[in-house]
Amino acid sequence: MVQKKVGVLGATGSVGQKFILLLSEHPDFELYKLGASSRSAGKKFADAVKWRQTATIPAKAQPLVVVECVASEFKDCDVVFSGLDSDVAGDVEKAFAEAGLVVISNAKNYRQDPQVPLVVPLVNTAHLDMVIERQAAATAAGKPKPGYIVCISNCSTAGLVVPLAALQASFGPLDSVFVTTMQAISGAGFSPGVAGFDILDNVIPYISGEEDKLETETQKILGSYQDGAFALQSDIRVSAQCNRVAVSDGHLACVSLKFVRQPAPSLDEVKACLAAFECEPQQLGCFSAPKHTMYVLEEPDRPQPRLDRSRDDGYAVSVGRVRPDNILDYKFVVLAHNTIIGAAGSGVLIAETLLAKGAL
Amino acid sequence: MVQKKVGVLGATGSVGQKFILLLSEHPDFELYKLGASSRSAGKKFADAVKWRQTATIPAKAQPLVVVECVASEFKDCDVVFSGLDSDVAGDVEKAFAEAGLVVISNAKNYRQDPQVPLVVPLVNTAHLDMVIERQAAATAAGKPKPGYIVCISNCSTAGLVVPLAALQASFGPLDSVFVTTMQAISGAGFSPGVAGFDILDNVIPYISGEEDKLETETQKILGSYQDGAFALQSDIRVSAQCNRVAVSDGHLACVSLKFVRQPAPSLDEVKACLAAFECEPQQLGCFSAPKHTMYVLEEPDRPQPRLDRSRDDGYAVSVGRVRPDNILDYKFVVLAHNTIIGAAGSGVLIAETLLAKGAL
Amino acid sequence: MVQKKVGVLGATGSVGQKFILLLSEHPDFELYKLGASSRSAGKKFADAVKWRQTATIPAKAQPLVVVECVASEFKDCDVVFSGLDSDVAGDVEKAFAEAGLVVISNAKNYRQDPQVPLVVPLVNTAHLDMVIERQAAATAAGKPKPGYIVCISNCSTAGLVVPLAALQASFGPLDSVFVTTMQAISGAGFSPGVAGFDILDNVIPYISGEEDKLETETQKILGSYQDGAFALQSDIRVSAQCNRVAVSDGHLACVSLKFVRQPAPSLDEVKACLAAFECEPQQLGCFSAPKHTMYVLEEPDRPQPRLDRSRDDGYAVSVGRVRPDNILDYKFVVLAHNTIIGAAGSGVLIAETLLAKGAL
Amino acid sequence: MVQKKVGVLGATGSVGQKFILLLSEHPDFELYKLGASSRSAGKKFADAVKWRQTATIPAKAQPLVVVECVASEFKDCDVVFSGLDSDVAGDVEKAFAEAGLVVISNAKNYRQDPQVPLVVPLVNTAHLDMVIERQAAATAAGKPKPGYIVCISNCSTAGLVVPLAALQASFGPLDSVFVTTMQAISGAGFSPGVAGFDILDNVIPYISGEEDKLETETQKILGSYQDGAFALQSDIRVSAQCNRVAVSDGHLACVSLKFVRQPAPSLDEVKACLAAFECEPQQLGCFSAPKHTMYVLEEPDRPQPRLDRSRDDGYAVSVGRVRPDNILDYKFVVLAHNTIIGAAGSGVLIAETLLAKGAL
Repeated sequence: MVQKKVGVLGATGSVGQKFILLLSEHPDFELYKLGASSRSAGKKFADAVKWRQTATIPAKAQPLVVVECVASEFKDCDVVFSGLDSDVAGDVEKAFAEAGLVVISNAKNYRQDPQVPLVVPLVNTAHLDMVIERQAAATAAGKPKPGYIVCISNCSTAGLVVPLAALQASFGPLDSVFVTTMQAISGAGFSPGVAGFDILDNVIPYISGEEDKLETETQKILGSYQDGAFALQSDIRVSAQCNRVAVSDGHLACVSLKFVRQPAPSLDEVKACLAAFECEPQQLGCFSAPKHTMYVLEEPDRPQPRLDRSRDDGYAVSVGRVRPDNILDYKFVVLAHNTIIGAAGSGVLIAETLLAKGAL
Repeated sequence: MVQKKVGVLGATGSVGQKFILLLSEHPDFELYKLGASSRSAGKKFADAVKWRQTATIPAKAQPLVVVECVASEFKDCDVVFSGLDSDVAGDVEKAFAEAGLVVISNAKNYRQDPQVPLVVPLVNTAHLDMVIERQAAATAAGKPKPGYIVCISNCSTAGLVVPLAALQASFGPLDSVFVTTMQAISGAGFSPGVAGFDILDNVIPYISGEEDKLETETQKILGSYQDGAFALQSDIRVSAQCNRVAVSDGHLACVSLKFVRQPAPSLDEVKACLAAFECEPQQLGCFSAPKHTMYVLEEPDRPQPRLDRSRDDGYAVSVGRVRPDNILDYKFVVLAHNTIIGAAGSGVLIAETLLAKGAL
Repeated sequence: MVQKKVGVLGATGSVGQKFILLLSEHPDFELYKLGASSRSAGKKFADAVKWRQTATIPAKAQPLVVVECVASEFKDCDVVFSGLDSDVAGDVEKAFAEAGLVVISNAKNYRQDPQVPLVVPLVNTAHLDMVIERQAAATAAGKPKPGYIVCISNCSTAGLVVPLAALQASFGPLDSVFVTTMQAISGAGFSPGVAGFDILDNVIPYISGEEDKLETETQKILGSYQDGAFALQSDIRVSAQCNRVAVSDGHLACVSLKFVRQPAPSLDEVKACLAAFECEPQQLGCFSAPKHTMYVLEEPDRPQPRLDRSRDDGYAVSVGRVRPDNILDYKFVVLAHNTIIGAAGSGVLIAETLLAKGAL
Repeated sequence: MVQKKVGVLGATGSVGQKFILLLSEHPDFELYKLGASSRSAGKKFADAVKWRQTATIPAKAQPLVVVECVASEFKDCDVVFSGLDSDVAGDVEKAFAEAGLVVISNAKNYRQDPQVPLVVPLVNTAHLDMVIERQAAATAAGKPKPGYIVCISNCSTAGLVVPLAALQASFGPLDSVFVTTMQAISGAGFSPGVAGFDILDNVIPYISGEEDKLETETQKILGSYQDGAFALQSDIRVSAQCNRVAVSDGHLACVSLKFVRQPAPSLDEVKACLAAFECEPQQLGCFSAPKHTMYVLEEPDRPQPRLDRSRDDGYAVSVGRVRPDNILDYKFVVLAHNTIIGAAGSGVLIAETLLAKGAL
C-alpha cells in the first residue's frame, strides 16, 4: 500500500515530538512535513528542536526542514496532526480545514464545536461518520472533498470514558460519576510545564480548566451522532477533582459511579463487561490498536502509572480495584497513558481508523 | 507548674521519634522513660535509634537508657505515649492500662473498642469524658485511679473529620461523603515503609486497611458520648479511595459531601463555618493547640502538601477549593500533617487536653 | 536600637521572597521598601507576588506597595538587598551604588569586579574592609558616605569554600581541589527554573556557567585584601563538575583535596580543624550567625540534604565522611543550604556584619 | 540452532526478575529452571513472585514451578545465572560449580577470587579464556568439562571501566581516576532496597562497600590474563565517592583522569577513541551486543539517566561532556544502565560470548 503523506503542526513541542515518534516508523504513514513557529522555520528539525523524548530523534525526522504552519506548505498531506498550543491552534486549524485539509488536533479549541467530532478512538469512532458522510456527499455532488477537523479529547477524559462507554454499552446509561484524577506532569507540556520546585515532594490540587473538560467532554464523547448532528449525553452527571502529581507519564483516576438501572449489574458482570470491551480500531485491525482495550487487573494495588502505563504501547487502558461503592454502585481505579492514548497516540489511531474506513 | 513525667513506647520507631521531638522541649511534660524492643533495651537512646528526623536528636533524649515495654518500668509516668506497631501494641497497652497507667496510643488495636475513646483533638475531646468520669467515680469510691487507653485516629481520618465536624456542628448531619486521599509516605513508617523504587515516578492506588478505617473511624469520632457509652454516627455514609503518592509529609484529600438538610447551606455559609471553627484545645489554651483549627484558603491551587502542611506547626488543618458539587452539595480539598495532627501531635494534644481538664 | 531601614530588589522572585522571609522579623532591620518590575509596581506585595515559600507571606510584607527598582524610591534605605536577575542587575545595582546606596547583591554581575567585595560571610568578611575603609576616608574628607556593592557568592561556591578556608587557616595553602556537586532545584529559581519533567527520575549533569563560577569565585573569596585591592589565590587549582538533582533545597558536594604542605596534616587534625572553625559573624555575635560554622558528622551516610540542610536555620555548613583520599590527601562531603547560606541568608549575614562593624 | 537450557537462581529477586525478562524471548536460550528460597519452591513462578518490572511477567516464566537452589535440580542446564544475595551466593554457587555447572553470578562473593574471571562484557571478555582453556584441557585429558563461576562486576564499576578500557587501549595506561557516582535506587534491590522516605527530596552520600568495589574491581577488570592467571592493573589509582540519588535506573558518574603518557592525547583523539571503541561481543555478533559500545554525546547537558539509559536497550554506555580537566588531563560524564549492562544484561552478554566462542 502506498503510504499516506502526513504533516505535524507544532512539531517542536511536547505533543508534536510524540506525534513524530509514533509516525516515523509507521507502516501507513510517511512523515512528510513538519510545521512550527517562524523561529524554527527554515531549520532542519534536528537543529530546531529541543528533543526531550527517551527515544532518540527518528532518523526520518532529523533532516526534514521545518516550515511555517500555513496550509499551502501542507497541501500534499493526506492528513495533518496538530500539536499546536490553543492560543494559535484556533486560526491555523480553521485555515487548514478551509483549505481542504484533514486536521487531527490535540488542541481544545474546537472540541465543543457542534460541527467537529471529538473522538476517543477506543470509544466513539462512530462520530467520525459526520466527516465521512460529508466527504461522500461532496464526492456524490462532484465537489472536491471538504477539509475538516477532528478533535482528540483532553488527556484525562480519554482514560475515564473508556470504562464508562463499556459499561453503558452493556448496562444502559449511567446516572452519576465521581472522578478524582492524579495526573502526570507530561500532560502540562514542556514550556515551561510544571516547575520541578512546585511538584517535588508535593501534589498540586488544581489544573486550570481540567475539571470542566472532564465534565463536558465526557457528555459529548458518550453522546450519539445521528442525522448529521451530535447529541450530548446531557443527563450523565460527572463531578471531577483534578490533581497534578510527581509522575512523568500516566494519568490515574479514582472513579465512583451509579447506573440509572437499578438494581445495578453484579460485580462479576461489571468486571466481565470491562474486560471484554473491544474498540472499533481493534475490530478494523488498525496498526496501533491495543490488543485489549481494557486490562482489568486483579492485584489489590494496581494499576500503577510506572508499571502499567505502557501496556500495549500505551494504547490500552488499565482498570483495577473494581469493587462495590457504599454510596453509589461501584468504584474503581483507571489508568491511561496521557501522551499516547490521551494525546498523540489517540490522534494516530483516529487517522488509522479513517484510513481503514476509506476516508483518507 | 511541675512537669508531668511521660514515657514513650516504641521510641525508636517513626511515631516514637516524633513523640520524642514534640515532648522534649514541652513545657508541661518531662521526657522520662523510653521503651523499645529488647534489642534496644539497655542502650542509650542515641545509640539505639536510627534517627531519621530533620531536627537532630533532642539533647534530653540522647542519654536516656532505653527500657523494655513493661509497665513496671513506667510506673512513675503520668502518661505514656505509644508508637508501638499493632502486632505488639495490643498486649502491651492492655497490660499498661491494667497496671493503672494512662496510655495514649497511635496503634489501631483498640480504636473500635467501645470502652476506649477514639479522639481527634480538633474534633471530639468530649469523648475524653468517658475516662474522666471513671476516674472521678473511682476517686469518689476511694479507689485508686484506673488506667485507661485513649486512641489516636488513623492519620488520614484525622484530616477528614475536622471539616465534617465543623459543618455538622453548624448545619446538622451529613448524608454522604466521598473522599479520595493522596497520602504521604511517612504514613507508612520506616521499616521498611514504602520502597523508593515503588513510589518514584508512581502512585500506588492502595493502602491496606486504610479505606475501611476512614469509613468506620469517622462514624465513631463524629458520634456522641452519652451515659457512659459511645454512639456511632452510623447514618453518615463515607466512601473512600486511598492512594500513596511521592510526598514526604502531609495527607491531601479530595472530598465531596451532601447534607441531610436540604436546601444545603450556602457556599458562603460553608466557608465561614469552616474558617470559624474552634476546637476545644484552643479554648482551653493548650500549648500545642493551633491558632486556627482550619485555614480556609482562597488561592485556586491550595492547599499543597509542601507549602501548607506545617501551618501552626502541623497542628492546623488546611481546606481549599471549597465549591459546589454538581452531584452532591459541595466539594473541597483538605490537607493535614499526617505525623503531627494525624499521629504523634494528636497524642500530645490529647494529653494536654487531659491535663487542662485536670485528668492527669 | 533603632532598626535599619532595608529594601529588597526583585522582591517577587525566588531570592527576593527569601530575603523578605529572613528580614521581616529581624531585630536589626525594618522591611521598608520592595522593588520589582513595572508589571508589579503599584500593587500591594501580597497581590503582586506568586508566593512559593513554605512559610506564609509575612504580615509586614503583605501591605507594602511594590515600587520600581529606581534609586530615588530607596533613598531612605540603609541597605538594599538585590535578588534581581543578572540581565537587569548590572544597570540597576550600579545606579543604586552611584546614588550612595549600599547594595548587597545575589547577582553574578559584579562578582569579579576588582572594586567589589565577593563575600561568603562564614569565610571572608575581612574583604568588607575595602568598603569600610572607603567610607572612613570619605567621612574623614568631609564627603558623604559613598555607595557600594557587596556581592554574595554563587550558591555552590558558598558551601565549598568554608572547609577550604578552615583548612588553609590551620595548615597553609591547598594545591588542588576536585569538587562534584549535586545541586538543588531551588538554585535555579522559579521562572521557569528546572522543569519537573526534566528532573523527575533524572539527574542533569550540567548547570550553565556553574563550574566556572566554582573555579574562579573560590580564588577571589580565598584570596586576600590588602592595600585597597583584592589578591586572588590564583595558585589553588579547582576542578568542578556540577549536577542538578531532584532535591528541593541543599547543595551537596563531594570534594577531594591536596595540601601544598607535605606531609599533610593528620586525619584527626583535619577533622578537629573543621569542627573548631569559627566565622567572624559568630565572634561578632551577629543575630543570624550559626552556632557552629561547620558541623562535622561522624555517621557514615551524612550529611544528607533533607536531614541536615537546616542546621542552625540553614546558616551552618555540614561536613561528613572526612577520610583519606588515595590520590590526593583527603576527601569529604559538604552540604550547604543554597537559598540560606548560599544566597539570601548570606546577604543578611553580610549586612549584620557591616552593622556590627559600624559600617551601616 | 538448538537453544541452550538456562536456569536462574534467586528468580524472585530484583536481579532474578531482570534475568527472566531478558532470557524469556532470547533466541539462544530456553528459560528452563527457576530457583529461589524454600519459601517459594513448589509454587508456580507467577504465584511465587512479587513482580515489579514495567513489562508483564513473561508467558514462558509464569507456569514454571520454582525449585530450591540445589545443583541436582539444574543438572540439565547449560548455564545458570545467579541473582542470589551475597549471604547465600557463596555456598550455593560453589556447590553448583563443583557439580560441573557453569554459573554466571551477579553476587560479589567471588569477584576477587584469582580463579574466577570478573567480566564486563564490553571490556574484558578476554578473561573468559581462563575457563575456556580449562575446559579444553579437561576435554583433551578425556575428563568431563569442569564447572566454573564467572562474575559480573559491580553495577557502578561496569559503566566506569568502559571508557577507561577504550582510552588505555589507544593511549596506554592511566595514572589516576577520580569518580563521583550518582546511582539509581534499583541498584539496591527490592527487599527493602532504599526507603522512599530516605530518598525523596534527598541524596544519600554513601553506599556500603561501593567505593571499595569501584577501586578494586577496576584493577582486576582492566588487568590482563596470561598463563592461567589474572594480573591486576595495580598501578592505576582510582578514588571513588558514591551517592544514591532519586533515579529509578541508570548510574551516572563524573570522572576526571590522567594518563601516564604525557603529553596526553588531544581532546579530539580522546573523543574519537571513545566513539570508535568496539567490544568483542559486537565483533562476535552476539544477540544482545550494543550497536555502539559507547555513544559520545555532544549536547552540553547529556547523558541524562531518564533520556539515555536505554540506548541500545541498555547495553550501550553513554559518555558526554568530554573536556579538559584543569588538574588532571580530561573529565567527562558516563552513564550506564545499572540493571542491564551493570547487572543482568551483563550476565546475558557474557553467556552469549561464551556461546559464540564455543564454550557452552
